[in-house]
Amino acid sequence: MNVFSTLKVDLGERSYPIYIGANLIADSTLIGKHISGRKVMIVTNEFVAPIYLDAMRAALADFETDVVVLPDGESHKTLNTVNLIFDKLLEQRFDRNCTLVALGGGVIGDITGFAAASYQRGVNFVQVPTTLLAQVDSSVGGKTGVNHRLGKNMIGAFHQPRCVIADTKTLSTLSDAELSAGLAEVIKYGAIDSPDFFNWVEANIDALKSRDASALSYAIEQSCAHKARIVAADERESGQRALLNLGHTFGHAIETASGYGNWLHGQAVGAGMCMAARFSESLGWMRSDETQRLGALVRAANLPTNPPEAMRASQFMELMSVDKKVRDGVLKLVLMRGIGQSVVTADYERDALMQFLESDCAVAA
Amino acid sequence: MNVFSTLKVDLGERSYPIYIGANLIADSTLIGKHISGRKVMIVTNEFVAPIYLDAMRAALADFETDVVVLPDGESHKTLNTVNLIFDKLLEQRFDRNCTLVALGGGVIGDITGFAAASYQRGVNFVQVPTTLLAQVDSSVGGKTGVNHRLGKNMIGAFHQPRCVIADTKTLSTLSDAELSAGLAEVIKYGAIDSPDFFNWVEANIDALKSRDASALSYAIEQSCAHKARIVAADERESGQRALLNLGHTFGHAIETASGYGNWLHGQAVGAGMCMAARFSESLGWMRSDETQRLGALVRAANLPTNPPEAMRASQFMELMSVDKKVRDGVLKLVLMRGIGQSVVTADYERDALMQFLESDCAVAA
Repeated sequence: MNVFSTLKVDLGERSYPIYIGANLIADSTLIGKHISGRKVMIVTNEFVAPIYLDAMRAALADFETDVVVLPDGESHKTLNTVNLIFDKLLEQRFDRNCTLVALGGGVIGDITGFAAASYQRGVNFVQVPTTLLAQVDSSVGGKTGVNHRLGKNMIGAFHQPRCVIADTKTLSTLSDAELSAGLAEVIKYGAIDSPDFFNWVEANIDALKSRDASALSYAIEQSCAHKARIVAADERESGQRALLNLGHTFGHAIETASGYGNWLHGQAVGAGMCMAARFSESLGWMRSDETQRLGALVRAANLPTNPPEAMRASQFMELMSVDKKVRDGVLKLVLMRGIGQSVVTADYERDALMQFLESDCAVAA
Repeated sequence: MNVFSTLKVDLGERSYPIYIGANLIADSTLIGKHISGRKVMIVTNEFVAPIYLDAMRAALADFETDVVVLPDGESHKTLNTVNLIFDKLLEQRFDRNCTLVALGGGVIGDITGFAAASYQRGVNFVQVPTTLLAQVDSSVGGKTGVNHRLGKNMIGAFHQPRCVIADTKTLSTLSDAELSAGLAEVIKYGAIDSPDFFNWVEANIDALKSRDASALSYAIEQSCAHKARIVAADERESGQRALLNLGHTFGHAIETASGYGNWLHGQAVGAGMCMAARFSESLGWMRSDETQRLGALVRAANLPTNPPEAMRASQFMELMSVDKKVRDGVLKLVLMRGIGQSVVTADYERDALMQFLESDCAVAA
């Protein structure tokens, strides 16, 4: 019997649990409760499959399972890759009553979720995130989708999973860079509206980096609880859910400009948060010592704090103009009044943003 | 001031009107009410554009409009074609607050609706159907999607339009074959559960074929009212909405086997309904004279009543096994107890279906 925590994402009839604990992938009772029908398609990638696929299939022994193994990495998060899943589902005669299981990191979760949203106009799916980033952020909340060469996550759907199974043991097989990428999203929750949690992350950053099990479990639980609360209040991002995009508008521009996969998403979010803080400071909204405090924590997590050297202000402006927070030509940004005091706002001058980007890119170059 | 009828699809906050009347494409007030934001992307095809695009753009003069002209026909109802719409939307910096307008037949409506469902995880769209088939059936109810080489409409979403504008004047530019294809869906509504409407179609089939304006308007209104009622009761097809698939399981198999576009959808539905009736008769469910009455009306509408000569029973069985009404290996069919007495059922023997198909294909060959 495994010991685990259970959180709930409260969305009426679309509510679902998040399970957090060690060795949960192998727990057949847990996943079995959330599968309807007999056929299960496990979607994973060539990095994760050799490590966790056998355990996952064993836990699903009561069902007819099949597997799609995708290439690894953000550069494969495309409509063409989703089509590989459709091919397999149709070749194997999967019907509307099937379940897809996303076994992997954020890319696998986003692709699989979109495939589940679109196959036969919507089938069930389960998230089994195997990276810190996916466990604390992307597996929860039902945002699914793929990239377009002109913008990140531009094609997708809101489609909630039936459950999220976060097996904390999988963090032992993460690279240091992947671990750090996940920490970016953990830091983000503190920076948005939880100064106490930010303090905790600061005090425990070394324990987190050295993969202390209880520190990681606590960080995952707090992050998921935070996200579940915001998603329950604003499932389709008509308001406060946009706060979760702190650092993401700058970050997505970095990812798109650098070529998907050259910066990990969490790395781009780390630098993006620091840029949001510096822009906020330049507007006179945030004190310099708070900007520096955020920068120090991002740096301590082994994440970049500056945009790529090669990027220019005009590139940022161009790429940010397709952000999903643009309304009739006006880009809303998540900016900061201080640590734990983020706001979604269009209350800044376009020229001020351009000036900030020019100076920030010049410093980085 | 145009004279038109208004019907409502009652879906709570997703409710929307269907407008039916002559010259409605040019009515700027009508469409203007249903557009949020400033940017509008008209999606149409190379056949429809030369005839109706100017009027559509003129009606949208208060907005910033742009256009995607797609190749015409069912063979282009693919994920790749949807991607052409995404390319244009992103190149032109369309944000989440934009509106897509589907100006064309069922293929354009299905593709555009799926693009709207998936672009930035969902934007608004309006249906402006220009074929009888789209006006009486596919533009209403929010089913959107594209084909896969292994099955029709296998990739898609439920995504309701903001309104449907059925301009009956567009029927004057339809080919005879397209007009007949639309009549298949009109006949279907009678065959499902409206014997009185079936009688009316029988009595007025010559007027409909000769494009009598009042007969066509009445047929469109009755069909839309019928569909709106069923969709309101069962938006996501968990029950009675499946009745609307009378003739479609056999029909989709015909379309896929023949290569998309070689049979018009309505032609396949015509033959598919007759097959459903003959199979029902072979099970002892439907009287022979009623089967013949349906066949006579389908034939009078200039539609085929038999499957393609080249198709074999085994092909039907194979293609029907991926139908969206399959649950755990069991295919539900829409069968008939009589004209206006259709039922969704799995209460038939697989062997009986195979036997029926063998004999029906042998007769056709």
